[in-house]
Amino acid sequence: MIVILKKDHDAEQLANLKDWLKGMNIGVHMSEGSSQTVMGLIGDTTVVDADLIRALSIVEDVKRVQEPYKKVNRKFHPVNSIIDVDGEEVGGGKMQIIAGPCSIESEEQICGIAQSVKAAGATMLRGGAFKPRTSPYAFQGLRKEGIELLLQAKKLTGLPIVTEVMDISQLEMFGDVDFVQVGARNMQNFELLKELGRIKKPILLKRGLSSTIEEWLMSAEYIMSEGNEEVVLCERGIRTFETATRNTLDLAAIPVLKEMTHLPIIVDPSHATGYSRLVAPMAVAAAAAGADGLMIEVHNDPQRAFSDGIQSQTPEQFAQTVEKIEAVLPHAYKY
Amino acid sequence: MIVILKKDHDAEQLANLKDWLKGMNIGVHMSEGSSQTVMGLIGDTTVVDADLIRALSIVEDVKRVQEPYKKVNRKFHPVNSIIDVDGEEVGGGKMQIIAGPCSIESEEQICGIAQSVKAAGATMLRGGAFKPRTSPYAFQGLRKEGIELLLQAKKLTGLPIVTEVMDISQLEMFGDVDFVQVGARNMQNFELLKELGRIKKPILLKRGLSSTIEEWLMSAEYIMSEGNEEVVLCERGIRTFETATRNTLDLAAIPVLKEMTHLPIIVDPSHATGYSRLVAPMAVAAAAAGADGLMIEVHNDPQRAFSDGIQSQTPEQFAQTVEKIEAVLPHAYKY
Amino acid sequence: MIVILKKDHDAEQLANLKDWLKGMNIGVHMSEGSSQTVMGLIGDTTVVDADLIRALSIVEDVKRVQEPYKKVNRKFHPVNSIIDVDGEEVGGGKMQIIAGPCSIESEEQICGIAQSVKAAGATMLRGGAFKPRTSPYAFQGLRKEGIELLLQAKKLTGLPIVTEVMDISQLEMFGDVDFVQVGARNMQNFELLKELGRIKKPILLKRGLSSTIEEWLMSAEYIMSEGNEEVVLCERGIRTFETATRNTLDLAAIPVLKEMTHLPIIVDPSHATGYSRLVAPMAVAAAAAGADGLMIEVHNDPQRAFSDGIQSQTPEQFAQTVEKIEAVLPHAYKY
Amino acid sequence: MIVILKKDHDAEQLANLKDWLKGMNIGVHMSEGSSQTVMGLIGDTTVVDADLIRALSIVEDVKRVQEPYKKVNRKFHPVNSIIDVDGEEVGGGKMQIIAGPCSIESEEQICGIAQSVKAAGATMLRGGAFKPRTSPYAFQGLRKEGIELLLQAKKLTGLPIVTEVMDISQLEMFGDVDFVQVGARNMQNFELLKELGRIKKPILLKRGLSSTIEEWLMSAEYIMSEGNEEVVLCERGIRTFETATRNTLDLAAIPVLKEMTHLPIIVDPSHATGYSRLVAPMAVAAAAAGADGLMIEVHNDPQRAFSDGIQSQTPEQFAQTVEKIEAVLPHAYKY
Repeated sequence: MIVILKKDHDAEQLANLKDWLKGMNIGVHMSEGSSQTVMGLIGDTTVVDADLIRALSIVEDVKRVQEPYKKVNRKFHPVNSIIDVDGEEVGGGKMQIIAGPCSIESEEQICGIAQSVKAAGATMLRGGAFKPRTSPYAFQGLRKEGIELLLQAKKLTGLPIVTEVMDISQLEMFGDVDFVQVGARNMQNFELLKELGRIKKPILLKRGLSSTIEEWLMSAEYIMSEGNEEVVLCERGIRTFETATRNTLDLAAIPVLKEMTHLPIIVDPSHATGYSRLVAPMAVAAAAAGADGLMIEVHNDPQRAFSDGIQSQTPEQFAQTVEKIEAVLPHAYKY
Repeated sequence: MIVILKKDHDAEQLANLKDWLKGMNIGVHMSEGSSQTVMGLIGDTTVVDADLIRALSIVEDVKRVQEPYKKVNRKFHPVNSIIDVDGEEVGGGKMQIIAGPCSIESEEQICGIAQSVKAAGATMLRGGAFKPRTSPYAFQGLRKEGIELLLQAKKLTGLPIVTEVMDISQLEMFGDVDFVQVGARNMQNFELLKELGRIKKPILLKRGLSSTIEEWLMSAEYIMSEGNEEVVLCERGIRTFETATRNTLDLAAIPVLKEMTHLPIIVDPSHATGYSRLVAPMAVAAAAAGADGLMIEVHNDPQRAFSDGIQSQTPEQFAQTVEKIEAVLPHAYKY
Repeated sequence: MIVILKKDHDAEQLANLKDWLKGMNIGVHMSEGSSQTVMGLIGDTTVVDADLIRALSIVEDVKRVQEPYKKVNRKFHPVNSIIDVDGEEVGGGKMQIIAGPCSIESEEQICGIAQSVKAAGATMLRGGAFKPRTSPYAFQGLRKEGIELLLQAKKLTGLPIVTEVMDISQLEMFGDVDFVQVGARNMQNFELLKELGRIKKPILLKRGLSSTIEEWLMSAEYIMSEGNEEVVLCERGIRTFETATRNTLDLAAIPVLKEMTHLPIIVDPSHATGYSRLVAPMAVAAAAAGADGLMIEVHNDPQRAFSDGIQSQTPEQFAQTVEKIEAVLPHAYKY
Repeated sequence: MIVILKKDHDAEQLANLKDWLKGMNIGVHMSEGSSQTVMGLIGDTTVVDADLIRALSIVEDVKRVQEPYKKVNRKFHPVNSIIDVDGEEVGGGKMQIIAGPCSIESEEQICGIAQSVKAAGATMLRGGAFKPRTSPYAFQGLRKEGIELLLQAKKLTGLPIVTEVMDISQLEMFGDVDFVQVGARNMQNFELLKELGRIKKPILLKRGLSSTIEEWLMSAEYIMSEGNEEVVLCERGIRTFETATRNTLDLAAIPVLKEMTHLPIIVDPSHATGYSRLVAPMAVAAAAAGADGLMIEVHNDPQRAFSDGIQSQTPEQFAQTVEKIEAVLPHAYKY
C-alpha cells in the first residue's frame, strides 16, 4: 500500500500514523520528493483499512499495490482448487455441465427434464425452489416442496443437485442439497455469506449484477474466511446500457480470474444473454475460453415455463449445444 | 400490455393464448396490419407475466404500457404519503435531516454526535450497528451493542433513530428502532423485504447500486404488498464508470419518483459522492430539487472513524451545511 | 410503431396526427380499450420520427415494433454480405486475421512486423498512422508518413492494409488504403460517416465506447444510405464499471448481430481487454462464437511501443494465438 | 507517478528505465520493501506515458499521483477563469442562461423564440444548424442557412449566439458565431479539438456520453494546448442503465470540477433528462449546486419541433423556470 501525503503535512500527525502502522506490524519506507512525499507500507496490508488512512487530513491519496484478499488469492495458493460436488469434480479438468429448469414446477417436470439432460450429457441438475423475482406478484417458487422434488429427481438420475438459497432461515432445508447457489442479488448479502462459510457444502457464488471482479472475490473471501473453502464462481453477465441482451456476458472474466484466484469458474449463458437462441454460441465461446463448467437452463416446455421460459432451451436444443461444447473442448484455452 | 405477434403465427396457439388471458379477466383487442398483428391487452395486466408471453413461439415482442406496480403507484394513490417516524413526518412538507455516524463505535461517540447534530438542526439520528463491508476483515459493526447505544442516544436527545437491518434474524433486536433501513446491497433481498412487509414500522429503502427506478419501486411494492405501507425511498447514487466520485448521485430521480409514486424520497449525499467535501453542495442541490429529506454522515472525529470517515462531515461542517439547506428551502422546487 | 394515447385525448389533435401520418403513407389501426387507446402504425415507419410523436400532448408513449434501419437489416437482405478487401473476402466463411502494431513507428518496425504476422498466418496488416489519444501530449501518430510506410509494408508482403481515418480532411491520403477504419470515438461522427458513404472502399466500423448495438447499426446505415454498402462491423468492448480490463468485450454481440444484420463482424480482443495476456483466450472465444475475423495488435518490441504496448502480443505470441484460433475454427458456431 | 516493480526484476532493464527517465528530467526515488520495490518519479510527469512504463516486463503496475493535465488544472491556475462571450462573462459570478430551440427551423421560429427567451431572462441564444442525429433519415439541420437565421435572431435581440460545429470543414461558416459548441459525440474528435485550439473563439465543450471527468478535462486540454484558452465545460448527463431518463445528470461533477479546474461549468438539464417536465427541477438543483450557467431548450411549439420536442419547454414554462432559478441563486453553493 502506498500513502501519498499532502504537501506541508503536520509532523506530529505523521508520527501518529507511523506508530499506528507499527502497532499492526506494518513497516514504512519514506520517499520524499520535491512536490510529494510518499510512504510505502510493507507487510500484510490486508489488515489495513485504506479508507481509514485516506480520511486522515495529512493524506492526499492511498493506492493499493497488494490485493485485499488472501484465501482466494492465487499468489498464496498457486494450485487450482478442485471442488468435489457429490463425486463430480469442478476445476479438475472435466467440463461440468449443469442443466435444468429455472424453476421447479412439478414432479413430472423436474424428473422429466433431469432424465433428458442426463441423457444429453449434463453432469449436474439445477432447479430453482426459491425464486428471486423482481415483482411480488410473479411466481416465487415451490420452496420446500421444490427441494423435495429436486431430491426425487436426484434419486431417479443420480445427478448431483444445485439450487439457490435466498435467506439464512432456508438453510435448514438444504441438508441434502449438493451444491448451494448464491444468486447475483445476494452476492453481497454478507450475513448469508458468513453463514455459508460455516457449513460444509460447496457453494456456487454468482457474480452480482454490477459487481467488479474484485468485489466478487471479496465475497468469496467472506465464505472462505469462515472456514468453508469449497467455493466455485459463476459468471452470469453484468448490467450495462445494452438492451439487446438481458445482461452483458463478461467472458474476459475467465482469464482474469484464472490469474487472480485458484477457484474454479462456471459460466451461465442463459441468464447472461436472456434469450435461448443466444445460449449455444455463448456456451461454445465460454468453453473455448477455458471455463470449468457451464450452467444452462433447459425446460421441456419453455413456452409454458413459470419463469424465464424465454431463455430456456428445449432438451433437443440442449443436446445439440452439448455436442457443440464437446467438439470445441479439445481445443479450448488452457490455463 | 401490447403483444406483437410474429408473421404467419399459428391460429390455434393464438386461440390458446386468448383463452388463457380470458381466464385472468384480460380483454384482447386485435389490430391486424400488413406486416404485423398487434394484440392490445386490457384490464389489470399487473397479474400478467410479460416474460411468459414473450416466450411463446407465436410472439415477437411484448411491450408494457402500464406500470407493473400498484400499491406504490401514484395513479392509484394521487395524494402524497406522509410517513410518521416517532412523531416526525416524512413527506409532509417538513425537510427531515437525518444525521449521524456511519458506524456506532462507543457510547461517548454516538451520544456526543447525537447532541451535536440535534443542536445543528438534525431531526433524526442515524448510526450503523450492522455494517455491510466489502471485506470480511473490515469492521463489521457493534451489532446488538450498537443498537443499545443508539437507544441511549435517543433517550438523551429525543431524536428518532434510523439503523440498518441486514438479515431477518436481526429483526428481533429492532423492537425499539423507529425507522428500519434496508441498505443498497439488500434492495433485492426479497425474503427480507417480505418480512419487513409484515412488521409495523417505517422502512427506509435505499436504491440498489445499479437498480433502475422501476426495480426500486418493485422492491417497495414487495414491502407494501405484505401490508406495511410505511415506506420511504432513499436515493444514494448508482454505479457508473466515473471514478472521481464513489457513485453517481441521480437527482433527476426526485422529479421522476414524484410522478411515479406517492412515497416520500430522501437523498443521501454522503454515500452518493463518497467525499465529505462534496456533501454540502449536493445536499443543497437535493433540497432545491425538492427532496423530502436528507441523510448525512457526521462524525466527531472523521479521521479516526471505523468506517467511511472520508465521507463524514464534522459537526461544524454539518452545522454549516444545515444552514445552507435551510436557506435554500423556501425556494426549493415543489411538486 | 405503436402510439399509446393519453386518456381523454383531444379529438381534433388526434385527427391532425392521423392526417399527418396519412401524408407519409402510414396507415393507422385504432384499438380502444377501457383504460387506453392504442394506435398501430402500418407501413414504412423508418421515415417516422418517434420522438416527434412522443412530444405530442395527446400521446403517452411510443413503442417501435420495427427496426429503424433498412439497408443493414437482415430482414430486407437475408443473405450474408461478403466484403472484398483487395482480394480477401470478409464474411464469406474464411476467418480473416488482421494483425499489426497499434502505431506505425518506422519502416523497419512496420515492415518487420508485417513479415512476421504474414508468416504466422495473418491475412491483413493493420497499423495506425493517425492516433486518437486521450492526452494531447501523447504520441499522435506519424500521419501521412505512416500511411506511406504502411504502403511499403504492403508492397513487401502483399497483405491488404487497414488504417484509421480520424477526419474528413485526411481522406485524400487514403487513396491506396484497402480498408478504412472508423475508430470507436468516431462511431457517431456523422459527417465523417456520410463522407465515407460516398467513397468506394470497404469501411471497418468500430463500435462506440458506450454504444448500443442498435446505435452501431444506425451508424452503418449512415454509410450505406449514402451509397457505400461495403461495411464491416468491429466489436472492441464497451465501457463498464469493471476495472480489471480496459473494456468489457461483448461477445454476445456476435449472435445478436448475425440476426439483425447481414454485415460481417470482426472482433478486436486487444482493445477490448487491454492486456496482451488476455488476447489469446478471447481470440479463441470469439472465433468459437462465430466471428468472421479478428484484429490483433502485434509489436516486435511491445516494451518500447509508442502506444498501447501493454496490449500488444509479440510475433511469437501471435503465432501461437493463430494456431489456437485455427484449431478451434472447425468447431466454431455457424450462422 | 509511482512505478511498482516486479519481484526479482532484471537489474539492467531497471538501469535502462532510470536512464530513460533521467533523459526526460524525471528524478527517481527508490523504496525497497520485502515484497515490493517502488519507484517514486519526481518532476513534470505529464510528459511520461504511463502505459509505456506499464508495458515493461519488469513493471507490475504504475499509479499516477499527479493529474495528466496542466493548462486546465486549478493547481497551476488557482483563480477562476472568466470567459467573455461577446460581452457576457461566463464564470464571473453572473448566472448565464442559454436558451433556444434544439434545431433552427425557420426565420419566424428562431426570431420568435429569441425574443421570447430574451424577455424571460435568457442571456444567450442557442440553436442547432448542424444536428447530430442517430438516424440518417432524421432531420439533419438547416446547416449554412441555419447559421444565417441565427445571426438574424442575434441582430434582432442582441443575444450572443451558441451553435454546434460537427466537422472542421464547417468552421468557415462560424466566423460570426460567438460561442462554438462541441457536442457530446465529438468530445473525443481530437482533430476537431486541435483545430478549435487554433481559433480565437470561446468553446463550449460538452461531456461525452460515457466520459469520465478526467477524459473530459483532457479534451479541454487538447484545445488549450493549441493556444485557445477560452473553454467552458457543459455537463449534459452520462449514459447509465437507467431508462426513466434519457441520461443521468451528474451534478456532483460541479463541485468535483470546481476543485480540479479553473474553467467555468454550465449544465444542460434538457439533454440530461430528455423530458421537458424534468427540466425545471434539475435547472434549480444545478443552480443551487453552483453552476456558472444553464443551457435550456425552448421551443414555441414543442409538439411540432423537428427534433427533441419532447425535451423542450414552451416560452411560458421557460419564463417560470427562470424565475425559480433566480429565486434560488442568492442561496446557491459558492466555490
